[in-house]
Amino acid sequence: MLPRLARAAASSANLGPGFDALALAVDRYVEVSVEPAERLSVRAEGEGADLADAADPESHLAARVASQVAGTDRLAIRIRSEIPVGRGLGSSAALAAAAAAAAGAEPHQAFAVATQVDGHPENAAASVYGGLVAATLIDGQPVVRRLPLDDAYAYVVLVPDHQLPTVEARQALPAQVDHHDASFNLGRMALLIAGLADHTQLIAAATEDRLHQEARSKLFPEAPKLLDGLLQAGALASCWSGAGPSLLGICIGDTAHEVREAGEKLMSDAGVAGQALLLRADPRGLQVVPSPSKE
Amino acid sequence: MLPRLARAAASSANLGPGFDALALAVDRYVEVSVEPAERLSVRAEGEGADLADAADPESHLAARVASQVAGTDRLAIRIRSEIPVGRGLGSSAALAAAAAAAAGAEPHQAFAVATQVDGHPENAAASVYGGLVAATLIDGQPVVRRLPLDDAYAYVVLVPDHQLPTVEARQALPAQVDHHDASFNLGRMALLIAGLADHTQLIAAATEDRLHQEARSKLFPEAPKLLDGLLQAGALASCWSGAGPSLLGICIGDTAHEVREAGEKLMSDAGVAGQALLLRADPRGLQVVPSPSKE
Repeated sequence: MLPRLARAAASSANLGPGFDALALAVDRYVEVSVEPAERLSVRAEGEGADLADAADPESHLAARVASQVAGTDRLAIRIRSEIPVGRGLGSSAALAAAAAAAAGAEPHQAFAVATQVDGHPENAAASVYGGLVAATLIDGQPVVRRLPLDDAYAYVVLVPDHQLPTVEARQALPAQVDHHDASFNLGRMALLIAGLADHTQLIAAATEDRLHQEARSKLFPEAPKLLDGLLQAGALASCWSGAGPSLLGICIGDTAHEVREAGEKLMSDAGVAGQALLLRADPRGLQVVPSPSKE
Repeated sequence: MLPRLARAAASSANLGPGFDALALAVDRYVEVSVEPAERLSVRAEGEGADLADAADPESHLAARVASQVAGTDRLAIRIRSEIPVGRGLGSSAALAAAAAAAAGAEPHQAFAVATQVDGHPENAAASVYGGLVAATLIDGQPVVRRLPLDDAYAYVVLVPDHQLPTVEARQALPAQVDHHDASFNLGRMALLIAGLADHTQLIAAATEDRLHQEARSKLFPEAPKLLDGLLQAGALASCWSGAGPSLLGICIGDTAHEVREAGEKLMSDAGVAGQALLLRADPRGLQVVPSPSKE
């Protein structure tokens, strides 16, 4: 087994109406290197570094995934992450995909492993295949397709300091929805897919949603005002990023700097501690290279 | 007011998961000519000709639309239609769009009028703009976007002789659906949009639906077997066409003749009187020319 280094992208799922169906890879990354060792160790820096417990390495997601893929837990695992954890930016899918690939998995296996970790495939699909993806489970198997994405877009992501656990965010969803609301989302998502392919075709209404955002706003009451503020600041459309609490403004590259600055102020005015990131789509997905650092 | 002749395409809406969101224009047409006259008359030939009542011309959809657009009912209206009525092929939207355009409406007005007739915009959007469209109502206004469509496709449409009134087909729908079923359709529709853009990406599961097809099968119990038969005969995917009872097989052009022949046999074996059509997408949408026939 060679030491390998794998890099996977963060992702923003749902994109408003595309609940459990769409995701976008963005240019924040987690890198994982795996090499043979006497015994399991996990060393982490950057975002999520506090999750690596030297006394209990086997509890770490990267360790579980890499051990499963490699068929051994005699591994030295290093993680360097730029992806905030528990904020709706697909950190667990990206980490799982990178850990699997660094341990020797092919991309489609890394995709399957990361899907299993999340229980749904959109974030994993974006992290592994890059760009804008459609992804869903068919008979329990993840299926992914790339969708066209206009490279004129930049993305402003408001990332609150507080986490919103995915489990709570899922529990906030209603068991049933009006048939009319289900078709509402279908119509909006079809317009959104057309608009993401061509920024001249995108309208703000394309990210409207009736399946999850309103229900989840109970967990993050400032969200509707922040989403509206992103539009007022110049974003073409805005929505929750995944299960939140991060919020996404879809911008033309030229105006994104202003939207980001406005986003900082919006959060500050709303009393929401956090940061506003200016991101681009990641078109490449999972990258694997022989590890440069062996010590 | 010049005599004008307008032609609009038939359409197949929903396409499985894209309930009230997607439609496809196909190459069966209705032509409507309108010219000034002493008094209202409607003459019709072809499909739906029996709906033109010489003693009561003002009750005809084309007369109502053309009179509204022209601001007068002193019109001689002629209709020639290839679009079966009440079978889920968008005959009312196409007729309304063509009548509006022949009476002087611009395409976007014809789209709005035809949307009003149907109460939803997908069929009207396909008839007016051609190709594959996303369409929905936003604050009561119809919005349409073109989506990419692989021209390798041909479409086999099983058209039963019996009508399935849209009102009954709508009443068969449940008021509420499981949240999981709503997201099921989103995932399938996203895959379908990717597959319609590129036939190498289409899988049969992309036309699966949980919002309308099963509920409507109560009105057409042979439908599931016919849909499955289309797949067995070589269609890449199959679904209801609009509110039915027509059924659509999405085929590669090379195999479509065989699928059409198999479709005839499937209907015959199932005891469903009707015909199997082999259609292509219409890429042009509404066409308007000065009327060639003035008598």
